[in-house]
Amino acid sequence: MSDPAADGPLPDSLAAIADLDLDRTARRGYPEAVYCESKTADQIRLIAAELSERGTRTIFTRLDPSKTEALLAVLPDAGHDEEAHLAWWPPDFPAPTGRKVLVACAGTSDLPVAREAWLTARLLGRGADLVVDVGVAGLHRILGRLDQLRGAGAIVVAAGMDGALPSVVAGLVACPVIALPTSVGYGAAFGGLAALLAMLNACSPGVAVVNIDNGYGAGYLAAQITAGGESSQKGRPQP
Amino acid sequence: MSDPAADGPLPDSLAAIADLDLDRTARRGYPEAVYCESKTADQIRLIAAELSERGTRTIFTRLDPSKTEALLAVLPDAGHDEEAHLAWWPPDFPAPTGRKVLVACAGTSDLPVAREAWLTARLLGRGADLVVDVGVAGLHRILGRLDQLRGAGAIVVAAGMDGALPSVVAGLVACPVIALPTSVGYGAAFGGLAALLAMLNACSPGVAVVNIDNGYGAGYLAAQITAGGESSQKGRPQP
Amino acid sequence: MSDPAADGPLPDSLAAIADLDLDRTARRGYPEAVYCESKTADQIRLIAAELSERGTRTIFTRLDPSKTEALLAVLPDAGHDEEAHLAWWPPDFPAPTGRKVLVACAGTSDLPVAREAWLTARLLGRGADLVVDVGVAGLHRILGRLDQLRGAGAIVVAAGMDGALPSVVAGLVACPVIALPTSVGYGAAFGGLAALLAMLNACSPGVAVVNIDNGYGAGYLAAQITAGGESSQKGRPQP
Amino acid sequence: MSDPAADGPLPDSLAAIADLDLDRTARRGYPEAVYCESKTADQIRLIAAELSERGTRTIFTRLDPSKTEALLAVLPDAGHDEEAHLAWWPPDFPAPTGRKVLVACAGTSDLPVAREAWLTARLLGRGADLVVDVGVAGLHRILGRLDQLRGAGAIVVAAGMDGALPSVVAGLVACPVIALPTSVGYGAAFGGLAALLAMLNACSPGVAVVNIDNGYGAGYLAAQITAGGESSQKGRPQP
Amino acid sequence: MSDPAADGPLPDSLAAIADLDLDRTARRGYPEAVYCESKTADQIRLIAAELSERGTRTIFTRLDPSKTEALLAVLPDAGHDEEAHLAWWPPDFPAPTGRKVLVACAGTSDLPVAREAWLTARLLGRGADLVVDVGVAGLHRILGRLDQLRGAGAIVVAAGMDGALPSVVAGLVACPVIALPTSVGYGAAFGGLAALLAMLNACSPGVAVVNIDNGYGAGYLAAQITAGGESSQKGRPQP
Amino acid sequence: MSDPAADGPLPDSLAAIADLDLDRTARRGYPEAVYCESKTADQIRLIAAELSERGTRTIFTRLDPSKTEALLAVLPDAGHDEEAHLAWWPPDFPAPTGRKVLVACAGTSDLPVAREAWLTARLLGRGADLVVDVGVAGLHRILGRLDQLRGAGAIVVAAGMDGALPSVVAGLVACPVIALPTSVGYGAAFGGLAALLAMLNACSPGVAVVNIDNGYGAGYLAAQITAGGESSQKGRPQP
Amino acid sequence: MSDPAADGPLPDSLAAIADLDLDRTARRGYPEAVYCESKTADQIRLIAAELSERGTRTIFTRLDPSKTEALLAVLPDAGHDEEAHLAWWPPDFPAPTGRKVLVACAGTSDLPVAREAWLTARLLGRGADLVVDVGVAGLHRILGRLDQLRGAGAIVVAAGMDGALPSVVAGLVACPVIALPTSVGYGAAFGGLAALLAMLNACSPGVAVVNIDNGYGAGYLAAQITAGGESSQKGRPQP
Amino acid sequence: MSDPAADGPLPDSLAAIADLDLDRTARRGYPEAVYCESKTADQIRLIAAELSERGTRTIFTRLDPSKTEALLAVLPDAGHDEEAHLAWWPPDFPAPTGRKVLVACAGTSDLPVAREAWLTARLLGRGADLVVDVGVAGLHRILGRLDQLRGAGAIVVAAGMDGALPSVVAGLVACPVIALPTSVGYGAAFGGLAALLAMLNACSPGVAVVNIDNGYGAGYLAAQITAGGESSQKGRPQP
Repeated sequence: MSDPAADGPLPDSLAAIADLDLDRTARRGYPEAVYCESKTADQIRLIAAELSERGTRTIFTRLDPSKTEALLAVLPDAGHDEEAHLAWWPPDFPAPTGRKVLVACAGTSDLPVAREAWLTARLLGRGADLVVDVGVAGLHRILGRLDQLRGAGAIVVAAGMDGALPSVVAGLVACPVIALPTSVGYGAAFGGLAALLAMLNACSPGVAVVNIDNGYGAGYLAAQITAGGESSQKGRPQP
Repeated sequence: MSDPAADGPLPDSLAAIADLDLDRTARRGYPEAVYCESKTADQIRLIAAELSERGTRTIFTRLDPSKTEALLAVLPDAGHDEEAHLAWWPPDFPAPTGRKVLVACAGTSDLPVAREAWLTARLLGRGADLVVDVGVAGLHRILGRLDQLRGAGAIVVAAGMDGALPSVVAGLVACPVIALPTSVGYGAAFGGLAALLAMLNACSPGVAVVNIDNGYGAGYLAAQITAGGESSQKGRPQP
Repeated sequence: MSDPAADGPLPDSLAAIADLDLDRTARRGYPEAVYCESKTADQIRLIAAELSERGTRTIFTRLDPSKTEALLAVLPDAGHDEEAHLAWWPPDFPAPTGRKVLVACAGTSDLPVAREAWLTARLLGRGADLVVDVGVAGLHRILGRLDQLRGAGAIVVAAGMDGALPSVVAGLVACPVIALPTSVGYGAAFGGLAALLAMLNACSPGVAVVNIDNGYGAGYLAAQITAGGESSQKGRPQP
Repeated sequence: MSDPAADGPLPDSLAAIADLDLDRTARRGYPEAVYCESKTADQIRLIAAELSERGTRTIFTRLDPSKTEALLAVLPDAGHDEEAHLAWWPPDFPAPTGRKVLVACAGTSDLPVAREAWLTARLLGRGADLVVDVGVAGLHRILGRLDQLRGAGAIVVAAGMDGALPSVVAGLVACPVIALPTSVGYGAAFGGLAALLAMLNACSPGVAVVNIDNGYGAGYLAAQITAGGESSQKGRPQP
Repeated sequence: MSDPAADGPLPDSLAAIADLDLDRTARRGYPEAVYCESKTADQIRLIAAELSERGTRTIFTRLDPSKTEALLAVLPDAGHDEEAHLAWWPPDFPAPTGRKVLVACAGTSDLPVAREAWLTARLLGRGADLVVDVGVAGLHRILGRLDQLRGAGAIVVAAGMDGALPSVVAGLVACPVIALPTSVGYGAAFGGLAALLAMLNACSPGVAVVNIDNGYGAGYLAAQITAGGESSQKGRPQP
Repeated sequence: MSDPAADGPLPDSLAAIADLDLDRTARRGYPEAVYCESKTADQIRLIAAELSERGTRTIFTRLDPSKTEALLAVLPDAGHDEEAHLAWWPPDFPAPTGRKVLVACAGTSDLPVAREAWLTARLLGRGADLVVDVGVAGLHRILGRLDQLRGAGAIVVAAGMDGALPSVVAGLVACPVIALPTSVGYGAAFGGLAALLAMLNACSPGVAVVNIDNGYGAGYLAAQITAGGESSQKGRPQP
Repeated sequence: MSDPAADGPLPDSLAAIADLDLDRTARRGYPEAVYCESKTADQIRLIAAELSERGTRTIFTRLDPSKTEALLAVLPDAGHDEEAHLAWWPPDFPAPTGRKVLVACAGTSDLPVAREAWLTARLLGRGADLVVDVGVAGLHRILGRLDQLRGAGAIVVAAGMDGALPSVVAGLVACPVIALPTSVGYGAAFGGLAALLAMLNACSPGVAVVNIDNGYGAGYLAAQITAGGESSQKGRPQP
Repeated sequence: MSDPAADGPLPDSLAAIADLDLDRTARRGYPEAVYCESKTADQIRLIAAELSERGTRTIFTRLDPSKTEALLAVLPDAGHDEEAHLAWWPPDFPAPTGRKVLVACAGTSDLPVAREAWLTARLLGRGADLVVDVGVAGLHRILGRLDQLRGAGAIVVAAGMDGALPSVVAGLVACPVIALPTSVGYGAAFGGLAALLAMLNACSPGVAVVNIDNGYGAGYLAAQITAGGESSQKGRPQP
C-alpha cells in the first residue's frame, strides 16, 4: 500500500499545510496575512474557508487571477484589487488612525507594487495617498509635491531601474522613507537588484529598505511607523 | 547518409542513455534513484521497463504530472505523491529501523520540498514525522514542539525566505540539523540563494546544508545519520 | 606651466572638497554628519576647523585612529568612541526626547557596528539601551529580554553570519525593527551579503533594512521613527 | 560630558561584550566555543580570565599569533595548534567515544582547515584520523585508502579549487560525508565559492556542506553524527 | 511615410540579416556554422536557401523542432538530430582523419549537449565515440573505461551538477580534456555556473573549458586538437 | 465597502497611471518616449489616446505584437517595426540634421536591438546607417568598412557573447563609440552580463556603455552626440 | 643553464614589456596614455625614458607616490596631481578648443576620480570646470548650478553609493551625461557595483557609463564628445 | 597533555603535509608541479629537500620573493623567474619537441602571467615564442604578426580588461587558442571575471579557457596540444 500519510498529516487537510496564527488581529491590531505566491488554489480555498468560519480579518497577497477566483468562490464578498494582486476580507477598510502615509511611485510600471503598499497601509488602519509617475527623470514632478511629501508621517517610494527616487525624497523630508525596489527595467536591472543596491546605498540617511516588489512589507512598515502613541507599543504574548 | 549513430549507441535504447547502478540496493540497503528533471517521458519509460523486469527498488524524483503518467503506464502500481513530485516502486514502505527523523517545514510554501524529504527518509527505512508552518515569525510554534524536536535522531528543516529556522532549531537540540533551503520568497530571495547563504552561515554549530529544493538529498542524509549501529557501516565493493 | 587648478578650485581649500550643509541642525534638529572613510586626515582637519568656527553640531563617522587624532588636534574636546569609529562635537549628548530605542547585538563581533547605532540614536536625541550577545544560537538570551524589547519604540538588531535575529525579534514585538547586517562571518558570509539577504527576506513583516555595517544609518532611522509627535514633521526649506 | 556609557554597559567589562553560555558543557557534553576572528586581544583576555575562574572547558577558534599570545598570557597551559589557528583549555583531550571520524584533505594548502576539523572532532570526544594530499588529480591516493574510508562513521572532506573530492568519496562509502570547502585556488575559485557550489551540487547523495574554511563546524558536525547511542539524544533545557 | 528602411537594408532580405562567410570550408576544411538560437524561422529559411544554392557545407546549431521543420522545408535531405538540436547539410559525414575523439557524458541529463559535441567532432572529420552515464558517483563506471580514455587524442567531458568528472578524467590520461559544463542540476547549480567554476578550478592540469551547454564549441575544439599533422596548420587569408 | 480608490486616483484613468511629460518635444526637440515593457495593453491605449488628441510626437518602445495591435487600434497610422519592437507617431521621420550615426551589429541575433538604436537615431533627427554581421570572428568584415566607420560622428556597436567588437571599433576611429550589449549567447553570457562587463572594460578609450538590450538608449545618446552646434545646447526650464 | 630568455625578449628592455603607440598624438590629436596600475616602477622608468627621448606627449594614470617619484626621476618637469594619481608630460596644458566640459562630483570622497576626469579633459584640449559636493541628498546644491550645467557640451558626473546623481542631472540638461561610478560606500556598495548598476539603469536617457573609478576614460569620452566640428572626424590610418 | 598529533601525522614532517607524486615525470614526460601560493616557506623547504634527494624534475609555481629565497637555500642551482613567480629544478630546459607554442600578451600588465605560460611550455618540452603588447586597441600590432600566429601549433592569449584578444586571434588562425584571463583592470573587471566571461563567450570557435591568472595551466595545455604524434598518447598506470 502506498499511503504516504501513514505517520503524518493528510495533505488535503488544513492542519497538513498551515498553522494559522488566528489571534494575531487581537494581539496586534493588524490582520492575518496569507502569502499566496507558492500556494495552490486548493490550499487557498481551505484557508479561506477556515477564516470565513472564524471571522478572522485577513489579507491575501500575490494572487493571480485564477487564485483570486478560487478565493472569491469561498468568500464572495472579499475586497480585491487585480493590479495589486491583493484581496482582503471582510471587504471594508478600517477607519484611519495615526499619521498619514504617502506612497510615491516613480513610473507607471511600478504601479502594481505601489498599489499593494498603498492598500496594505489602508487595510492596517492608516490614511494613505498615492502619487504616480514622479521619477527623477522629470524632477519638477516630485518637487511639485513638496507639501504633500512633508505632510506625511512616512513615505513609501516605489522605484525600479536606477532606484534613485528614495535618495532624492529622503533629502527633502524629515520623516522616514521606505524604499521599495521593483523588478522593472532593462537587462542590467537584474530583476530589481540594481534598484535594491542603490536604495541600500542611499546617500541620504533615513531610508529603510524592503525586499524587491514587496509592496505588502512596505505598507506594513509604513503603518507601524505612523501608528502613533500607544497603539504601536502593544506587544505579543510570551511565547 | 545521415545516421548519427554509425559509431555510437542508438539514442532510443537504454544503453544509449543510462548505465543503471542496479546493485545499489543490495550493496547499500538503499534503493536506486532516478533524477527525472531533465529526462524525457520516453527515457523514463525505458528505465522503468528495465527496473520492472529486474525488480529493482527505485525512487523517481522531480516528476511532473506528464512524466508521472508515463511512469504509471509502465509501473501501474508504483507509489507516488503529486505534491512532492516523487514516485517509488514497489509501492510499499520498508519497516522503519534506526532512530526517528523529524522534518520541520517553515511555511506552507515549503511543503512540496519538505514532503520530498519526509517520504525519502521513510523510503530509505526510517520512521519520520512531518510538522508544518513552524517558521520563526511565530516562535511559539517551534517552541511548542521541543519534545518532538529532542526526540529525533536528525532533523530536516526546510525553509525559504530568510532561512532562519535551522539556526534556531540547532540551538535547541543536540542532534544534527539538516538545513534544506527552498526557492520560496520575494525578489531578493534570488531563487533560494538568500536562504542557502543564511544556512551556510548558521550561528549555531551542527548544521549540515544541502542544495536548494533538494528534498531527496536532505531525506537521504537524514536516513544515513539515523541508520544506527552497523547498517551504516556497510561499504561498497571495490571499484 | 602645470597648475591643474587654473580654472577650478584649489584642492587644499575647503571649497574645493566640500559644500557643507551647515544649516541642517537648525532645519532638522539633527546634526551634520561627515563620512570620513575615504577622506584624508587633511580634509578632516579642514572641515573640523570650519565647523569649530561656526559652532555646528557634527558627527564624524568611520574614523580610524589616525584620523581621530587629526580631528582631536583641531577639536580637542570632541567626544569619541574608538570601538564605534565615531566622534562628535560638541561632546555632550542632547537630553533624550521621544520614545526609547533599543539596540540588540547578536554577537560580540557585531559590537562596533551596534555601538555606532546606539551612540548615533543618542546623539540625535533619543534614550537608547544596548544589549549584547543575544544571538539565536541561545534563544533564551533574547527571550529573557522580552519586556525590554516590548518597551522600545524602535529596535535596531545588528547581526552578521545568518542574519536571523531580526526575523525572530520582529515576530516578538509590535514596533518596527531596523535590521543592521554586519560583515562578520566565515567565507560564505561574503562580507555581510548573507546577513543582508536574510534580513531583506525576513519572514516577519515590519523589518527595515539598512546597508552592511552602517550603524550610523540604523541609529538615524531609529531616531526618526521614535521622534514622536510633531518633531519628525519638520520639513526642509524649498530647494 | 562625553561618556557614551551613561545608559549602557561599559565597553571594557565582560558584560559589555559577551553573554557567555557557561553551562553548555554540562548540558551538551560539548565545550563552549569562542570565535576570535573579529574579537580584539583585550576581549579575548577578558573572556579567558572568566573561563579560567569558572573552569569551563572551551575551544578558541580563528586565533592569529598575537591573539594566541594574549590567550596564553591568561591561560598559560592551554593547548594550541598554530596551523589550525585553534586553542583549547584545559589542554587534555577527552577519552574518545562513539564511532571514528576520518578527515581527508585534498591538498597541502587545505591543511590548516582540515586540522581545525580534525582537532575539533577530537576535542569533542571522538577518535579521529587525518589523511593528507589525496585529491582527485591522483585518484590512486584516495582509492588506496578505501578500508580507512569505510571504517569511519563520518568523513570530513576538505578541498578547495574544484571541490570534487567529496563527490568521489561519497560514491565510495555508506556513511555521511561532510564537505568542507576551502578558499584555496586561482582567481575563479572566488575565495572558495567554486568549491562550495560544487559540493552543494555533489552528484552523490549523502553529502552535508558547511561554510567555507569552517573547519570547526565540520568537526563539530562529524562529532555529532558519530556520537552514537544516547549521548546525542541529550537536549537543552527549555528556553 | 513610415518606411524604416529608407537608408538601410530591407529586413527581409539576406543581406539585411547576415554576411555569410561562404569560403570558410575551402579555407579551413571546416563547415560554416549557423547559430539558430535567436534567429527566426524566416531568417533560417533565407540562409538555408542561399547555402543550398551555393552548395556550402553547413552545420545548424540550437534548432528547436519548429525551426528544424523550417529548415527541412528548404533542405529536405539535411541530416538532423532532435536531441542534439543539430542539423547539417549535406547529410553525409566526412571520412574520419586525425586521432580519435572520445565524448564522455556524466549523466543521462547531460546527453543532449554531449551528443552535440559528438556529432560536431564527426562532422568536422574525426572519428568519435560516445560513452554515457559515467559520473563520479559510481567511479567504477569511468575506471572501467580506462583503455578507451587512453586511446583518444582528446576527450570531451560533459557534466552538470558538481562538474567533477573532468578533474577525475584529466588525472587519468595524458591527452587534453575539454570540460563541457551543462546547465543540469538543483537550484544552486545556477544554470551551470557551479559546474563551470569547478571545471575552471580543476585540480588536474590539462583541462580546457568551454561555455555552458556549448556542445558545438567542445566538439570543434576537440576536432582541432586531434586534426594532426599539417591540416591544422592551414591559416586564413589576410584580412 | 471595498473601493480601494476612496482616497486615491482611479486605476483606469490616465491620471492614475501616468504624468505625461507632454512638453518635452518643445523643450528638447526630441519626442516623448513611452516604455511599454511592463505596461498593459489598456494602459497603452489610454496613453495613445491622450497623445493622439494633443498631437505629441511619441516613440513607443518594447512593444510585443499584442500591444502593437492595441496601439494601432487607437493610432492606425503610427509607424512601427516588428523586429525592433518599436512604434512611433506621427509616422514620418524628421529631416536629418547634424552628423551621421552608424549602427554596427556584430551578429544576426543582435539585429532587433541594433534596429531599435538605428530607428531611434533617425526618429530623433539624424541620418543613420546600419551594417550587420560584422563580428570580430571574421575581422575582414569590419576592416572592410573603415571608410564608413570613419565617416560617422558617433558609432553604436551592438554585440552579445564576448562583447569584443566595441573595443576593436574604438581602436580604429576617432569618434565616440556607444557600446550596446545584447543578451545573446550561451549559458555563461548570463543574459548579456558577459558582454556588458567586457564593454565596460574596453581597452580602447572612448567607449560609452548603455544597458543590456537598450537600443533606444543607445540611439538617443548617438543622436545627442551628433546633434551638432547649438541644438544640443538647449536646456530644460527650471524645475 | 637557466636563461628563460633564450628564445624571447629580455624582460628588462623596453621591447620586452611594451610596444608603444608613439604616433597616436600625431594621428589623433590626443596624447599617448600609460596605465601604471600593474606596472613596476622600473617599467615606468623605461617607458618614461623612451618618451622623453622622442618628445611624445603622454599621460600617466593610476600612479601611486612611489611610482610618481620614479617617473619624476626621469622626467623632473612632468606635471602631476597627487590626488588624481595622474602625471603628464610635457607639463603644460593645451589651449582649450571645442565646447566646455563640466565635471560634477557627488561627494568629497569621489574627488580623486573626479579630478582625474577633469584633468584628462583639459589635457586633451578642452576647457573644463569642476564642481564638488553636489550629491542628491541636498538637491538645492545641484539645482543651484543649472546655468553652469546647461552651458556645458558634456557633463561628467562622478558618484559612488547610490549613483543617483547622473539620472537627476540628465533629466535637467540636453547634452550627454557621462556617468562615472566610484567605489565609495558602505558594504553593499560592493566596490562601486551598486553605483555602476544604478547608472546603467538611469531612468533618464542620454547617460553614457564608464568603468568604476575610471576618471581617465570619462574625461577622454567628454573630450571626444565636445571636440566639435572636424577635429573629431580624424581617423586612424589603415591597420 | 596537549599533543594534537597523538593519532595523526606530525605537522612538521613531509608525510604530514604532502603525498608527492614522484613518478609523474616517468609516466607522463612532464615534471612534478608544486603550487606554492598557500604553502609556508617551511613546507616548501621540506618538499624541495625531498625532491633534491630523489632528483625529481619539478616546477614550483606562485612563489613570492621570500619563498623563492627559501627554495634557493635548499636548491641553490634552481632556475627561477621573478616576474613569473616561477622556479624549476634542475635548471636546464629540455630540448624542444613537437610543434611550436606562441604566447601573445595583450598588455604590459599581463606580462607576469604570460611569462608563466611561456616558461611552462618550454619546461614541458616545447619551443615557444612570446609577443607582448598586442592588444586590440591597436589592431595593427596583432595583424602585423599573422605569419607568426599561423606558424604555431597552439597559441596562448593572455589578456585582462575586456578579454577581447582571444576572439580576434581565433578568427585569424586554424590552431586552438588557449584563452588566459588576467586580473588586470579597473573596478568592473572584478578581478578578471570580465575577461573570463568574455573568453568563455568568444564568438570564434576553437577557444579553450583556463582559470584567471593561471599561466601554468595555459602553458601545460599548450604543451599537451602541441606534443605531437605518440608522446601525448602515453597514459598513466592503472589506479
